[in-house]
Amino acid sequence: MIETADYPAGGLICQASVARPEGAGPFPAVMIAPTIRGPSALERQVAERLAGLGYMAVLIDVYGKEQQDLAPDQARAQMDALLADRALLRARLLAALAFVQGLDGVDPARIAVIGYCFGGLCALDIARTGTDAILGAVSLHGVFAPPGLGPQAPITAKLLVLHGWDDPLATPDDVLCLTRELTGAGADWQLHAYGHVGHAFTNPAASSPGLAYDAAADRRSFAALTGFLAEIFA
Amino acid sequence: MIETADYPAGGLICQASVARPEGAGPFPAVMIAPTIRGPSALERQVAERLAGLGYMAVLIDVYGKEQQDLAPDQARAQMDALLADRALLRARLLAALAFVQGLDGVDPARIAVIGYCFGGLCALDIARTGTDAILGAVSLHGVFAPPGLGPQAPITAKLLVLHGWDDPLATPDDVLCLTRELTGAGADWQLHAYGHVGHAFTNPAASSPGLAYDAAADRRSFAALTGFLAEIFA
Repeated sequence: MIETADYPAGGLICQASVARPEGAGPFPAVMIAPTIRGPSALERQVAERLAGLGYMAVLIDVYGKEQQDLAPDQARAQMDALLADRALLRARLLAALAFVQGLDGVDPARIAVIGYCFGGLCALDIARTGTDAILGAVSLHGVFAPPGLGPQAPITAKLLVLHGWDDPLATPDDVLCLTRELTGAGADWQLHAYGHVGHAFTNPAASSPGLAYDAAADRRSFAALTGFLAEIFA
Repeated sequence: MIETADYPAGGLICQASVARPEGAGPFPAVMIAPTIRGPSALERQVAERLAGLGYMAVLIDVYGKEQQDLAPDQARAQMDALLADRALLRARLLAALAFVQGLDGVDPARIAVIGYCFGGLCALDIARTGTDAILGAVSLHGVFAPPGLGPQAPITAKLLVLHGWDDPLATPDDVLCLTRELTGAGADWQLHAYGHVGHAFTNPAASSPGLAYDAAADRRSFAALTGFLAEIFA
């Protein structure tokens, strides 16, 4: 079962969706950063699967609770505003992290963040703050553009990038840039690339050229994700 | 327990080392192609681990049974001769495959090949024949140079490339070439790249710059390997 909870991010009220495992905890927590579309049924399903595996799964919100169920152009405007102000995005993400750290039943020493599409960039951006408050970050068909907020701090979180090699939003050149960035930041990073796979491979409703569901990549990436979480929370 | 068995490869007698699971079988089989050094204790340990997981594990030999325990320069001469004659290497590999297909207790419909270093190239080379006699091929810190034996046949085996991103023997450019080759061949391919990791990451004795053991990559690659085998043999 998923419950919603409001939390502040600067002057904005955001709304998280929380899926709790059975039992008393404390539980390791997995923050889930949504796609460009904002929190949706897809991420809520992931949250419930992760709660079933014993993780406190928290779907976060970087647009604000008044910005739910957006039309595509509205969602794009929200995302573009944050991509144009990465310091503001960072502040929203750290507000979400603070909410999760204080959430009843969470073990604050065991927090990770994952994200899809724009949310993959969000997951990387939390790691890019250099914080040691998360143990790991996972990008699933994420985008990679670095934040450009001054010299990159050393990245202490372990990183896993799950990537469709034919993703038009993250080309091989973008991958090479990311490897240089993460290596330069001293991160423990891994990249899993899937051939013939594009963007949005976890979304059964995606069926455009270059942005399409891929059952094998969906299954393989979820297995990689859960294996990674088991490793970092061990 | 490992037993040796001789098999012919053209006019050459080769010697396999076979680790059998307990029970009667038939078992799925995993061929193991050794490093430049030829069959060694490292691959025999892998064979025993795989047999413990229920696979008939067969360490193959592409140099011939008279070429055991070679000094480094002798091993390099053997490997270089085969790299200079990829058709001969292919024939040796297909001879090993025929041996495994006929081995008592093997399910010939469920065969995979894995390999380390030069053996990673050997694993890819069997897949590059286009054969449907193997379900999958895994390269661990392998090298990638395509065989250059005419137009590449469609590759039907599933492929997993486990790669240290800082491997001086397989640079990012080499990775890009491989992705183009495998995509062009229509292969179901996956690449797992590990940051800050070089060549030979599974070998506890390796400690040179760029060619060094890495405990995390060793553990992660073995988990990826066994997950892949479970998938293709399911």
